[in-house]
Amino acid sequence: MIKGLLSVLLVLVALSSAMGKPEKTTPKKEKRIPQTLSRGWGDQLIWAQTYEEALFWSRSKNKPLMVIFHLEDCPHSQSLKKAFAEDKDIQKLVDEEFVVLNLVYETTDKHLSPDGQYVPRILFVDPSMTVRADITGRYSNRMYAYEPADMKLLLSNMQRALKFLKTEL
Amino acid sequence: MIKGLLSVLLVLVALSSAMGKPEKTTPKKEKRIPQTLSRGWGDQLIWAQTYEEALFWSRSKNKPLMVIFHLEDCPHSQSLKKAFAEDKDIQKLVDEEFVVLNLVYETTDKHLSPDGQYVPRILFVDPSMTVRADITGRYSNRMYAYEPADMKLLLSNMQRALKFLKTEL
Repeated sequence: MIKGLLSVLLVLVALSSAMGKPEKTTPKKEKRIPQTLSRGWGDQLIWAQTYEEALFWSRSKNKPLMVIFHLEDCPHSQSLKKAFAEDKDIQKLVDEEFVVLNLVYETTDKHLSPDGQYVPRILFVDPSMTVRADITGRYSNRMYAYEPADMKLLLSNMQRALKFLKTEL
Repeated sequence: MIKGLLSVLLVLVALSSAMGKPEKTTPKKEKRIPQTLSRGWGDQLIWAQTYEEALFWSRSKNKPLMVIFHLEDCPHSQSLKKAFAEDKDIQKLVDEEFVVLNLVYETTDKHLSPDGQYVPRILFVDPSMTVRADITGRYSNRMYAYEPADMKLLLSNMQRALKFLKTEL
């Protein structure tokens, strides 16, 4: 299992700035700012730490899960993050109706990369634990990618995600 | 895969305070303090978010990984956290020589629970991605548990973890 993870791990080799850069040359360390789970996608939201935790909360709260894949040094991720964090309608709907998780590393669940591993991309998972591959963005070559101009589409996709696949849970 | 995770997810049903409590009765929300990755185990340390990320960093930095399983509402976890966060020798050694991850949910890797899933427990993983089940604490019934009085043992176990299984990596 552990060794099998390697192929997944090595897909995203770009470094997340959340891990910081080694500073071997500076003898005196500056005080670090504690890393947040939000990573700037909404400090007032309650974020799951891991996919396992997010799935547990989605199921137990009966709320859909929104998974945001991004990278700290990807300009497309950064501009989407800014639009996402500043959009009050999206932040409010996430806060009230979703379980939310942002990841800078891929998981071992291939269902979360229906058309490949790229950033940024946003996937929804039903409380029945089914990835909603049917909820897509505007781009046919990267179906789960969004741009800052797509916030209305994202909001409407969130509303689609709220119509569960299995309401009789 | 997704459905198969359920058995793991349901093991730890105690709620993490990091997810907050629903406050349906308060119409006005108070401003939340952003959740940190450290969860109080050392704000100045650089924490991995997920096991996948931690394994990647362990391998690429050639540093052993320390995984801390805990729960926010477990008094044993809380007292261990306090001792861990206040121990300057441990914090310094973690900062310099380890990749570190704290989790309030179990992973799907059974190697991380050699004698069961309980909290608090601390496991080491070699940069060769082998769980060091040989590095144990003081208690025969819960081999990876530590108490606040065990900080010297933990420090010596950390030094053992620094002697890699495969130095020729």
